[in-house]
Amino acid sequence: MATEITKVRRHPERGSYDKEVLLDILKNGLVCQVAFQQNTLPFIIPMTYYNDSNYIYIHGSPVARISNTLRDGPTVAISVLELNGLVLAKGLADNSMNYRSAIIFGKPEELITEEEKMSFFKEWIDRLVPGRKESTALPNHDELKNVTVFRVKLDQFSVKIRKGGPSEVRNDPNIWSGVVPLSIRAHDPVFASDPRVPEYVKEFIERKNDEWKMNKKS
Amino acid sequence: MATEITKVRRHPERGSYDKEVLLDILKNGLVCQVAFQQNTLPFIIPMTYYNDSNYIYIHGSPVARISNTLRDGPTVAISVLELNGLVLAKGLADNSMNYRSAIIFGKPEELITEEEKMSFFKEWIDRLVPGRKESTALPNHDELKNVTVFRVKLDQFSVKIRKGGPSEVRNDPNIWSGVVPLSIRAHDPVFASDPRVPEYVKEFIERKNDEWKMNKKS
Repeated sequence: MATEITKVRRHPERGSYDKEVLLDILKNGLVCQVAFQQNTLPFIIPMTYYNDSNYIYIHGSPVARISNTLRDGPTVAISVLELNGLVLAKGLADNSMNYRSAIIFGKPEELITEEEKMSFFKEWIDRLVPGRKESTALPNHDELKNVTVFRVKLDQFSVKIRKGGPSEVRNDPNIWSGVVPLSIRAHDPVFASDPRVPEYVKEFIERKNDEWKMNKKS
Repeated sequence: MATEITKVRRHPERGSYDKEVLLDILKNGLVCQVAFQQNTLPFIIPMTYYNDSNYIYIHGSPVARISNTLRDGPTVAISVLELNGLVLAKGLADNSMNYRSAIIFGKPEELITEEEKMSFFKEWIDRLVPGRKESTALPNHDELKNVTVFRVKLDQFSVKIRKGGPSEVRNDPNIWSGVVPLSIRAHDPVFASDPRVPEYVKEFIERKNDEWKMNKKS
């Protein structure tokens, strides 16, 4: 539901508070941007994330600025952006981007036990690179101690989507307009310990490169 | 120079306060994330941007939440992220991303005159899609009135870069490790007013698709 803070004010027709849409945006993202207040000044930091249907999870070093700040439980704003295209309208002032944007607000809760942290790591990699979980060294006691994991409830959020062609105000038939679709491209591995690339890594690359085709349909 | 707010605390060896590096990160980016405080709560919003060597510029509707808030001149934090790869280390807790990240702090100043706003629009499109400026309808009086443009000085900032292979702690020769490079891919135009795609649009697509080769070298 739209609250005062999550309300989409500009182009409200592009806004939504639908949890299914939120989860669909979060599903393919690789990074989020976490904004919070530090000593009365805004701070922002890009982080990887994982989410299930109830929470978004971020993790970092216990000595990092964000860990120290988030432990105090301030409200954070987390942005996940999927950039889908550059919209070139006939009028320069009507140019835009096609995108799906999710913004989540909430107070971070720290995961305390080693079991919770281990579970986070396993689920994170299982979603990101299915098949990798069985082929990596799981974190040991010290590694789990040396990581902080926070979760924020997927409760207060808003999503905003722009898709389709240019919104034309100008009519000049001599001016070209259109949309240049943009997507993430994954390339063949580098710095590999072994030139024989595991199947699950090949599948990750293929899946990433196919995501934009799904977006086109939506 | 590193100040208390811009100081890179975690992995300081990855940090830099070099203006040339900042400008190089901003050069290819398409969107930034703007964080600010609204009624004691953090807010974050993705926006397109343009920058010259002194300022980063963002623009929006005068009725948008961000315009109303930024007009009061609060400090904002602006993040520009270039995602360059997924780093799969042997140890699950050592996974990382390759990236170049820039964070800029400052108080937004509003561009007031129509001349300033027109100049912003021309320079923005000229950098984004060289050749388009001569083939688009420039904003008229009403359009310039109906847009707010803010600039933030490139003065307080930090950049952070991770590149190269996995930082391995684990040694198991049976576990594969490596980096999956990621980049932005631009596709053939859709929703085009004319199937004959202008040369400058073809060049934009080609340039975007070649950027990752430059990153590989750096």
